Amino acid sequence: MIRDKNVLVRVLIPSEFSALSLPDVELLQYNADSDLPDADGLVTWGFPRFVREHALTLPSLRWALTLTAGVDNILPDFPPHLRLFNASQLHAEAVAQHALALLLAGARGLHAARDFQRERTWARSGIFSGGNVGGGLTTLRGKHVVIWGHGTIGRSLEAMLAPLGANVTGLRSSATREQLDEALRTADVLVLLVPLTEKTRGLVNADVLARLKPSAWFANLGRGELVVQDDLVAALESRRIGLALLDVTTPEPLPETSPLWTLPNVVLTPHVAAATNDLAERGAEFTRSFLERFTRGLPLENEVSRDKGY
Amino acid sequence: MIRDKNVLVRVLIPSEFSALSLPDVELLQYNADSDLPDADGLVTWGFPRFVREHALTLPSLRWALTLTAGVDNILPDFPPHLRLFNASQLHAEAVAQHALALLLAGARGLHAARDFQRERTWARSGIFSGGNVGGGLTTLRGKHVVIWGHGTIGRSLEAMLAPLGANVTGLRSSATREQLDEALRTADVLVLLVPLTEKTRGLVNADVLARLKPSAWFANLGRGELVVQDDLVAALESRRIGLALLDVTTPEPLPETSPLWTLPNVVLTPHVAAATNDLAERGAEFTRSFLERFTRGLPLENEVSRDKGY
Repeated sequence: MIRDKNVLVRVLIPSEFSALSLPDVELLQYNADSDLPDADGLVTWGFPRFVREHALTLPSLRWALTLTAGVDNILPDFPPHLRLFNASQLHAEAVAQHALALLLAGARGLHAARDFQRERTWARSGIFSGGNVGGGLTTLRGKHVVIWGHGTIGRSLEAMLAPLGANVTGLRSSATREQLDEALRTADVLVLLVPLTEKTRGLVNADVLARLKPSAWFANLGRGELVVQDDLVAALESRRIGLALLDVTTPEPLPETSPLWTLPNVVLTPHVAAATNDLAERGAEFTRSFLERFTRGLPLENEVSRDKGY
Repeated sequence: MIRDKNVLVRVLIPSEFSALSLPDVELLQYNADSDLPDADGLVTWGFPRFVREHALTLPSLRWALTLTAGVDNILPDFPPHLRLFNASQLHAEAVAQHALALLLAGARGLHAARDFQRERTWARSGIFSGGNVGGGLTTLRGKHVVIWGHGTIGRSLEAMLAPLGANVTGLRSSATREQLDEALRTADVLVLLVPLTEKTRGLVNADVLARLKPSAWFANLGRGELVVQDDLVAALESRRIGLALLDVTTPEPLPETSPLWTLPNVVLTPHVAAATNDLAERGAEFTRSFLERFTRGLPLENEVSRDKGY
């Protein structure tokens, strides 16, 4: 590859980042219809087919930055000579706020309130029965919230739960069997945020669900495949757990025939925990900051480990 | 009234507080069917008719503690020789968490997600359009949240918003016209928590709503009568404001014919912000703590001022 003498690195960037500019970096915009010029690095929103087939095979390519958090859908096929970086930090805030939104919706009965709103009924039954005294409404004060997967997103959620009075236990992959058992046994809310790897696929199965309290809530903002979904449905149908708050399912989109749509103790959002209307701007700023550190040779926290699988 | 020599004070308490016991206090349980013995004080959940007609007319009565936050429905008729105490602190946590739940539901599109769930549709339109880039989803980070009514509940909400990155302005009744104008002009979210008095009835009218940004959200967890509801409906119908998050309306229950039920930019909960399933226990504990301070002659923060009206 022939380089301009002032250019340290040539990087393919999504065309919506056209306003981006950095010293010593040649930025080459691309979209799904582009012929891709050769480059040292690639910035991409995940790995759609044209990126896999065209960008990852460029002769000079040495690294790729995906502006997603999870890399489970790419890592098994990722070319072994390339370094891979992800963007968990770009999404931590939105995912943590989405998790908190789901937990508070459960506590304050917002799912039931929405159903009553559609029926034009000033609710006084179910979770709202008995007025101020009674019913099923709670707050998060004093609740034991177990955050399984205590990385960037989990720590952000923990900080948000502190002023609400929740007692938080963060479980990392280094947790012992005893720590896990104790956490599951005492959890009022289990929030699943672990990355999907070959080790974590089907992590939450009938055995794990059976160890939760019958009143416990289960929130999944990681990946649908972390859960044996048939076991979760069975636990919800038999009320062996209290409530499921799910941003992810298997498969996605969830088929119309899935019992998850209509179970009364399920709140669903369509895999949008990381979505925000300013993500393009924030993605551009994240890319600028990453490239600045990369070209200066500064430490980078977001390199994916093939051994860990995230 | 003839007293046992060891009894300092005789207090009527709701029958569900039967487990309560305090030194130097004679606790007299009552319910709606009781003949009420004479007493010095009264503890009550608001002022239903039998309390107004029978308890407030007892010859020895000198004070009443209502375990509600608002006293707007009783103060105009309250016997002038009685002291009145309220229980804002008992409800601050739940109301603040309910307010946060509504704000986060708006930010994360939970109302729309619930509608899509009922239709078994993996949403990719409206607030969810464009996947991760685009749509109408946001977080509270960087949002200017104006809390109008910055007492116990408002300060609790402010503490909860801090780790979410919101910029909070608390408006007290002492705010100047300039402070109010500036707050309304720049608010992304206006949260109404002021007490209902003759001065605040109809506080939020067409003029106030017109000064908000067209994208602004309005949340009301105070009283429906703080708002000129026809003006709010007009502002929502013409999209002069973005979203209304309402726990209170005029009247309550909201009539089936109200446009608030079906406007797409309204989220309703049925006046449940203070409701929790442990309120009976917490109310008993609040009563015990109040009576302990009262009988020891310690300062009491929760006396209602007739001048202020709350």
